[in-house]
Amino acid sequence: MASIDRRSFLRVATTAVAAGAVTPDLAVDSVDSDKGLMTTPVQATPEVTKILARYIVSARYEDLSATVRKEGLRTLLNWIGVAVGGSRHETVSIAAEALAPFSGPPQASILGRRERFDVMNAAFINGVSSHIFDYDDTHLKTIIHPAGPVVAAILALAEFRPIDGRNFLNALVVGVETECRIGNAVYPDHYDRGWHITGTAGVFGAAASAGKLLGLSEQRMIWALGLAASQPVGFRESFGSMNKSFNPGRAASNGLFAAFLASKNFTSSDQMIEAKRGWANTISTKQDYKEIVDGLGSRYESALNTYKPFACGIVMHPAIDAAIQLREQYHLDATRIESIHLRVNPLVLELTGKKAPTTGLEGKFSIYHAVAVAIVEGAAGERQFSDRAVQDPTIVHLRSCVVPVVDTTVKPSQVEMTMLLKDGRKLEKSIQHAKGSLESPMTDSDIEAKFIDLAKEILPPNQIRALIDLCWNLEKLPDASAIAKATVPV
Amino acid sequence: MASIDRRSFLRVATTAVAAGAVTPDLAVDSVDSDKGLMTTPVQATPEVTKILARYIVSARYEDLSATVRKEGLRTLLNWIGVAVGGSRHETVSIAAEALAPFSGPPQASILGRRERFDVMNAAFINGVSSHIFDYDDTHLKTIIHPAGPVVAAILALAEFRPIDGRNFLNALVVGVETECRIGNAVYPDHYDRGWHITGTAGVFGAAASAGKLLGLSEQRMIWALGLAASQPVGFRESFGSMNKSFNPGRAASNGLFAAFLASKNFTSSDQMIEAKRGWANTISTKQDYKEIVDGLGSRYESALNTYKPFACGIVMHPAIDAAIQLREQYHLDATRIESIHLRVNPLVLELTGKKAPTTGLEGKFSIYHAVAVAIVEGAAGERQFSDRAVQDPTIVHLRSCVVPVVDTTVKPSQVEMTMLLKDGRKLEKSIQHAKGSLESPMTDSDIEAKFIDLAKEILPPNQIRALIDLCWNLEKLPDASAIAKATVPV
Repeated sequence: MASIDRRSFLRVATTAVAAGAVTPDLAVDSVDSDKGLMTTPVQATPEVTKILARYIVSARYEDLSATVRKEGLRTLLNWIGVAVGGSRHETVSIAAEALAPFSGPPQASILGRRERFDVMNAAFINGVSSHIFDYDDTHLKTIIHPAGPVVAAILALAEFRPIDGRNFLNALVVGVETECRIGNAVYPDHYDRGWHITGTAGVFGAAASAGKLLGLSEQRMIWALGLAASQPVGFRESFGSMNKSFNPGRAASNGLFAAFLASKNFTSSDQMIEAKRGWANTISTKQDYKEIVDGLGSRYESALNTYKPFACGIVMHPAIDAAIQLREQYHLDATRIESIHLRVNPLVLELTGKKAPTTGLEGKFSIYHAVAVAIVEGAAGERQFSDRAVQDPTIVHLRSCVVPVVDTTVKPSQVEMTMLLKDGRKLEKSIQHAKGSLESPMTDSDIEAKFIDLAKEILPPNQIRALIDLCWNLEKLPDASAIAKATVPV
Repeated sequence: MASIDRRSFLRVATTAVAAGAVTPDLAVDSVDSDKGLMTTPVQATPEVTKILARYIVSARYEDLSATVRKEGLRTLLNWIGVAVGGSRHETVSIAAEALAPFSGPPQASILGRRERFDVMNAAFINGVSSHIFDYDDTHLKTIIHPAGPVVAAILALAEFRPIDGRNFLNALVVGVETECRIGNAVYPDHYDRGWHITGTAGVFGAAASAGKLLGLSEQRMIWALGLAASQPVGFRESFGSMNKSFNPGRAASNGLFAAFLASKNFTSSDQMIEAKRGWANTISTKQDYKEIVDGLGSRYESALNTYKPFACGIVMHPAIDAAIQLREQYHLDATRIESIHLRVNPLVLELTGKKAPTTGLEGKFSIYHAVAVAIVEGAAGERQFSDRAVQDPTIVHLRSCVVPVVDTTVKPSQVEMTMLLKDGRKLEKSIQHAKGSLESPMTDSDIEAKFIDLAKEILPPNQIRALIDLCWNLEKLPDASAIAKATVPV
């Protein structure tokens, strides 16, 4: 496969899909044994797992556009910042303490800390760390947080199996493509049902990127995807507990586990993603395989990644943006506000409907708190989702004035805010695309500023500056693991 | 909790369910935000996760009946036999080779081999080993293979954290209860959809039994169940590849992972099993929570465990039994058979419909091969599902004479076999319950004979005898880990 050039591969893949190449299983499986009747498959299913594996093993750094490469660097920088920022949280300390007795050799760094663990345990812990603040990157089409499973996996692996910066970036892009395309194929049904899609699609991204670094053959990559599919992680019921951060972490270590086994010829199905009783049919009522196999190598989901200016779920961002804008525009004083009415997408209350949060973590699932704290403090960073902020009497009072109303005509990217002041004034703000969206992206300097804010209590300023520069200069690094090592306090 | 006696607990639990205690979430969550309408929950949901956790932490060896204890010992003996028997298979060698570089300290034995791994990796490898031959125990109501996830987990854990035989047996029973009851709650819908239920329900069994050995508090057990729920393993598409054995192995290590994290206060939801977007609602269209919470401590699913006389999926057993009986009754010669007609339950073709298997492993998914080899060799042990047997010309010819017909009125435990001989004779055999079923169980001697057959090429006869005696005498052992150590070749 390595000797076939990428263009030839893409032609083959596209032809196969266009011709409606079907999985052997579906082609011959015309007996519906549940009913004992002969049936004809309604639609030919492409060989999704094989086509995807072929793309993964043949994708080359040299074929990535400048745009895709740049977005990959922004993804990396943002992720390192949130992982370092989360590294001192008790969630990480608990995980490290629980797993230390069982860890293998000290192969890989825990970002922002001094412990070292084996590759898989390090990937798990760093994946947890990066999601604690709910401040990581977001693929808006699926609400997947792409970097967690992928970068946690390959950054740990890079310390065990050296890789240069260009190939590291290529693996990162391949991993993000894999998980976001698989996510597209099943979103929104899969997510609506209750799966935490970052953990279920993410494990494919981790396996793909790790398998890429390991140089798996096409057959082994197919098995790695099959073993990854067999280990989905997480439900939305975990939101608000440490279990939410667990999910991207476990997706990272599960993906590595799949890739390591496949690299030694541990077999799986050749059609695990698309088979009748495989991943997509079992785990979702929607299966749009075109999202996975169409335009591989030309359409890049990884170029659509976004970064959060606010340390909470993306669904609250429009309301926070509106609140901060009104605050600044009118120099608002919280004590003069009578009520704050919001028209929001249904997801807002579904995901962040907690009325009376008592901890910082719960505050991330409270649209009431988010709007109140944004008005009082003019920001919604990690400090605004601390226990201190959630228990602040002024904020507690103001959140009781927040009145969200669900409106199915309001998109998740939108909000309509109407604020009534005690002096009778009525202030209005309509947001179409919040700061941090694709339409209003964080600039490179925004991401750097966010990084510095997250890391400043963990690393000294000169180390932070050097770390940021290392991330931007990834493509020049002979050994990508320099980045992981540079996060460790000296 | 430890100071509350079991009878009091059961009274509390039963009262709570009878009174329709509901999860706080469902009680207040009357806004269906998908539709923006007020709705009333149709049925109050019991606090399944809490009730189950309370049972697990309060269950005592002293309260187990002689019947339940005896079945637990049979479960252990049968499982050790199949795990030792599978231990030299390439699947195990590959797993051991792939994971060795990442393993922690040599805390636990690999059954039947000399390597030692950390607890979680050992549990994974032993879980794989025990399922390779598809010859392990079966809870017939759910087709769960209960021992794999549970015993693999606690046998490895017992080498790290010493435990006496009685408490080990109690943890085994608690684990099997947990996974089979959760399986009952979602079977058959969950399995029909495509999940490999041994891996999805099994992770709860592993977490429950491991958490029991770790002495978790009720709250930590709730979290362990939540983290276990977050890591379901495996799809039916894996059947026929190494990925099938992967599933119980990974369920074992995932359950340990959950229990270790929860033991250090890594939090999860308090309602992960029953919440709206928790495990059961997301992973199944059927949720019968009474199966989980009713009769805890009085009705024992673990007493319903069965053991296979044939080294393949349970659905083929009636046909194999019929074939062997006809062979012996009529001293059949394969060359004189014209055709073999079977009326079978739909599951038989759904699971074992491979017409032309080429490997021993594929032979386990071929009703055609199973019937043919049973007639030719008068057995269906591991040797009958080898590459040699599957490629034997006499058997290959005979399998083309096997004609299974699906009949929805035929139960999975039944078969109607009609054999036409070339001399015009017509032989018939009807099986209501195959050998190895609850109605026609393997005797203790049958299980011992199976154990000896599986272990004889791996351990010397005196070591096999000593190992069998250790299993039967588990309750007298001051340290249950003696069993794992006794499987290692000297």
